[in-house]
Amino acid sequence: MTHTARFQVATRGNTHVVDVTEDVARRAGSCPVRNGICCVFVVGSTAAITTTEAEPGLVGHDLKAFFERVAPEDAEYVHEATWGDDNGHAHVRASAVGPSLVVPIVDGRLTLGTWQQIVLIDFDTRARTREIIVQVVGE
Amino acid sequence: MTHTARFQVATRGNTHVVDVTEDVARRAGSCPVRNGICCVFVVGSTAAITTTEAEPGLVGHDLKAFFERVAPEDAEYVHEATWGDDNGHAHVRASAVGPSLVVPIVDGRLTLGTWQQIVLIDFDTRARTREIIVQVVGE
Amino acid sequence: MTHTARFQVATRGNTHVVDVTEDVARRAGSCPVRNGICCVFVVGSTAAITTTEAEPGLVGHDLKAFFERVAPEDAEYVHEATWGDDNGHAHVRASAVGPSLVVPIVDGRLTLGTWQQIVLIDFDTRARTREIIVQVVGE
Repeated sequence: MTHTARFQVATRGNTHVVDVTEDVARRAGSCPVRNGICCVFVVGSTAAITTTEAEPGLVGHDLKAFFERVAPEDAEYVHEATWGDDNGHAHVRASAVGPSLVVPIVDGRLTLGTWQQIVLIDFDTRARTREIIVQVVGE
Repeated sequence: MTHTARFQVATRGNTHVVDVTEDVARRAGSCPVRNGICCVFVVGSTAAITTTEAEPGLVGHDLKAFFERVAPEDAEYVHEATWGDDNGHAHVRASAVGPSLVVPIVDGRLTLGTWQQIVLIDFDTRARTREIIVQVVGE
Repeated sequence: MTHTARFQVATRGNTHVVDVTEDVARRAGSCPVRNGICCVFVVGSTAAITTTEAEPGLVGHDLKAFFERVAPEDAEYVHEATWGDDNGHAHVRASAVGPSLVVPIVDGRLTLGTWQQIVLIDFDTRARTREIIVQVVGE
C-alpha cells in the first residue's frame, strides 16, 4: 500500500532551517498505512532534508555556521561563472546533506526521538517556495 | 509486507563508530520479506547511520579526525549557551550525515559490498544507549 | 510489490561525478510499480549517491573542491597505514555523503526537479566499475 502527499513551504533561503515535523506527521498519520517506511523528499538541488533538535541555537546559528565553514559562500564556484549565478555554495551544501530522509512508521507514529525534528534546509540565496513529498509504503 | 525490529547499542559517545551490520542483517534475514527495502534508523539527534569499511584505522581515527576538522568540538555553538550543554558539535555532525540509511534486500540478503559495513556513529559527549530501528518493506 | 534492477557504471575515480538519472529512470519506469519508493544504492565504501544539478561547473569542479576542502587527499589517514592504501580520504568522503538515496515515484515518474539529477560520486583513487542497485517498492 502506497500513500503520497505533497505540501509547500515558504522559506527565506540562505540556509533557512524549517521544522516540518508536524507537516510530515499529519500526512503520515492520516494515511491508512500503520507500519511502513515514510520517505520525505525535497524537490530541487539547493535544499536538503535531515533531522535536528529544532531549538533556536542550532536552527538559527550553529547549522549555518557549520555550512559556512565547510562550503563558504564567497569561495570560488565555477557554477556561478556558468550561469551568472551566486548559489554555488547552496548546491554543494545540498548535495552533501542530500534531498531525502526515511523514517519508520510503527503503529501509526513516526519513530523520531523527543528532541529530533525533521527539517528542511533551504540553501538558496533567495526566498523560495519548496515542494516536499511525503510517501509512505507499508501496510 | 512490513517487518519491524528494534535493538539497542551501548556506545562510548565522542564519535564512537560501532559496526551494526550483523545486528541489522540478523533482523533483516529473519523476516519473511525476501526482496525489499531495509531502512535503518537511529532515534535521536546526536547520532547518525552510514556505511564504511569497518577497519580500525577508519573507525578509530580517520572518521573522528574528519568530523573534528569540519565541526570542531571547541568551536562556538549557540546550542550550548541555550542549554548549558557541551554537545553542539554532536548535533551539527549528526545532521550533516543523517539518521537514516536504506539498503536493498535481494533474495534475503543485504546488498552491501564485502568491505562495506553499516555503522552507527554516536557523536554525543557521553556514553549512551542508542535505539536502532530496522524496518523492511517488500515481498 | 518489489522490483529490483542493477546496472554498472565505469568511472575514472578521483571524485568523478556521473549523472545516472537516465539509468535509474529507465529501470524505475519499466517496472510495474506506478507509485512507490525508489531506492538507489551503490555497492562499496568509497562511492556515494546524491543529487545535484548536473552542469559542468558543479560536476567537474565545485563538488571536487568542496570534498578536497573538507577531507583533503593529503591529510593523514590511518587507514592508509593499515592497508598500504592511498584512499583514506575516499572512505571518509563516501561515509559523509552516504551510499543511498530514496526518490518517490508518482504516476510512474521520479519526482526530481528539473535541475536535479541523481549522481554517483566515485571517490576512489583509480578507475572503477561500480554496481548500482535500483529497487522500487510500491503498487
